[in-house]
Amino acid sequence: MDRILRCDHLTIERPTLILDRERVVQNIARMSARARAAGVAFRPHFKTHQSAQIGDWFRDYGVTGIAVSSVAMAEYFAAAGWRDITVAIPVNLRELSRIRELAGRIELGLLVESREVVERLATELEAPTRVWIKVDAGYGRAGMRWDNVGQIRELARRIAEASKLDFAGLLAHSGHSYHQLRPGDREATRRAVLGVHQESLTRMRAVRETLLAGGVERCAISVGDTPTCTQAEDFPGVDEIRPGNFLFFDLMQLQLGSCRGAEIAVAVAAPVLSTYPGRRQALLYGGAVHLAAQPLSGVAERPVFGCLAGGDGGLGQPVLSAALSSLSQEHGIAEVPGADLSALGSGDAVLVYPVHSCLTADLYDHYVTLESERVARFQSLPGI
Amino acid sequence: MDRILRCDHLTIERPTLILDRERVVQNIARMSARARAAGVAFRPHFKTHQSAQIGDWFRDYGVTGIAVSSVAMAEYFAAAGWRDITVAIPVNLRELSRIRELAGRIELGLLVESREVVERLATELEAPTRVWIKVDAGYGRAGMRWDNVGQIRELARRIAEASKLDFAGLLAHSGHSYHQLRPGDREATRRAVLGVHQESLTRMRAVRETLLAGGVERCAISVGDTPTCTQAEDFPGVDEIRPGNFLFFDLMQLQLGSCRGAEIAVAVAAPVLSTYPGRRQALLYGGAVHLAAQPLSGVAERPVFGCLAGGDGGLGQPVLSAALSSLSQEHGIAEVPGADLSALGSGDAVLVYPVHSCLTADLYDHYVTLESERVARFQSLPGI
Repeated sequence: MDRILRCDHLTIERPTLILDRERVVQNIARMSARARAAGVAFRPHFKTHQSAQIGDWFRDYGVTGIAVSSVAMAEYFAAAGWRDITVAIPVNLRELSRIRELAGRIELGLLVESREVVERLATELEAPTRVWIKVDAGYGRAGMRWDNVGQIRELARRIAEASKLDFAGLLAHSGHSYHQLRPGDREATRRAVLGVHQESLTRMRAVRETLLAGGVERCAISVGDTPTCTQAEDFPGVDEIRPGNFLFFDLMQLQLGSCRGAEIAVAVAAPVLSTYPGRRQALLYGGAVHLAAQPLSGVAERPVFGCLAGGDGGLGQPVLSAALSSLSQEHGIAEVPGADLSALGSGDAVLVYPVHSCLTADLYDHYVTLESERVARFQSLPGI
Repeated sequence: MDRILRCDHLTIERPTLILDRERVVQNIARMSARARAAGVAFRPHFKTHQSAQIGDWFRDYGVTGIAVSSVAMAEYFAAAGWRDITVAIPVNLRELSRIRELAGRIELGLLVESREVVERLATELEAPTRVWIKVDAGYGRAGMRWDNVGQIRELARRIAEASKLDFAGLLAHSGHSYHQLRPGDREATRRAVLGVHQESLTRMRAVRETLLAGGVERCAISVGDTPTCTQAEDFPGVDEIRPGNFLFFDLMQLQLGSCRGAEIAVAVAAPVLSTYPGRRQALLYGGAVHLAAQPLSGVAERPVFGCLAGGDGGLGQPVLSAALSSLSQEHGIAEVPGADLSALGSGDAVLVYPVHSCLTADLYDHYVTLESERVARFQSLPGI
């Protein structure tokens, strides 16, 4: 049995998001090398970290273009010096004046999926703006369906005609790669993830062929979910990849085979409030507002909202048998094997690996590194 | 069929937490009246709103004591003039210096459940501090089990002996009232919620009897989860109730029978990005980071992460058939009946009722009222 790792040496008082900088940099290096080997551009999705400082760590790997998931995030990274930003969510017409302003300052990429939005952009934008058609290559969330080729072609033509719009190509996020877990069968899971990859790319290339045959001059393909970007060996026909989560990984990616436990680069340091030897549980100060209440899929018995770290130092490694089985607003219940439980007491602190690191990180306004340095994060201020 | 309510008149650009002040005040008035009728003190839990301004709305109802769920929140409300605050989560020893400081400034209430923590408090606190024994009356989350009477009595004695500690009594949160849903059977759900109420109170009174018989002088009983506080008619033996969620309610409380749809007092205004008539869905700018990814329990088919508002104005009423069936980080998919869908387009905005309003509200740093006034919220800054 792995020993539960205490992080009492970290001078944390309350639940705190701990970042292993070395792992983060290794994750960047690895994905950057994959992209280079596959001959595709690497446009990392910065929604995962939302930190200007972490963004800078990408510059050593030649990254100049990024993706974000909101206009506000684009404004934040533009202020941090990024000049080539794709807002990788369909255009929100209610933010058109801010989009117009931003397009005048940087190389902005936008996503569209309807004639209506393209007409508004064609009328209202003043600076040349890259426009991608968002394609649904099978996920079923957003975009024009891959088999709706006639309408995609028509929209591409309309974009190409508009003087301020520059048709960039086809962009997809095959998020159904996250749904390919075959519980207990790593190899079947891997095959299923790669199946999504191949199917999506086949569909995207077919749409592009039709567009090029129909007179569209240039049409890039942009894809990028972490499961396929970490597991696929090649990306035939793809021009750029936009993974985000690979930077931190999490239990979901571990389960899908996208990473090893020792590659997960963030965890929440949580004070221990009480222990209950009778039921082999510990009460942590660390709840849904500190971890995000997304349970791990494909778990048979109790839900898993995170798990404790074990090992000897740093962030350690996830100990899946020491799972957080219940979260309320501020409390979490950890299932702790008996020998480990007796070593824990009120006032200790443990590390909790998140199920979905993007959602967990979004709950904080900063990270703390293992060296106790503070790394600031963008805090969106939603509202009027 | 209810008509989907658009909120285009609200000048929101991005997902925004909208608050119906009138409903909030009515919810306060109703709970205050229930407490008065039952002859129990009303100590509302401010973790739900975390706003000094909303806190002030309680003062008209004679509220002087409150509960919060973190030391930081207690500091925030102390700064807003509250002088009687219970931190309703077991003491976190890593915050002891801040607790000591706070105890010197206000009437502070703390929760304990172990000898170890009581000894630390007895040694380190300098000002008289109210100490409650946290009792697990059946929920199984935190506290000393109700049937562990010997140890509870011993701990109560130890508290009473410590010169700076004032033994306040027994405090429970019977959160298993939230697990009493009997899908499709409102009456059975109500009976099950009331069953939890009665069982918890019977257990708490029995513990108190033993303590009083054993020489403990004074022992109050504090309880308070929203399902039982809204549904029970009487609270025999109880001294104070501490409900929080009743202020806003949500789909979970609606499902449990704790409120009517028109009593839910917060909703997220979300821009419409696209509509998909073929699959009867709309893509909203409103995802897990705007709503919190907690699905409604006891729903048979697709998960429900929220539902749209229908009706004629204000916050309207929840339309359960127009559910959010999927959330990713920033996107939400709403199932919208055909006639309603054709009336929606990119650039519109709709209102989304949350599943669990405490978690949803925690994602924002302010509310916007229906009159477009901004109401600030405490933003905890976790960390070192």
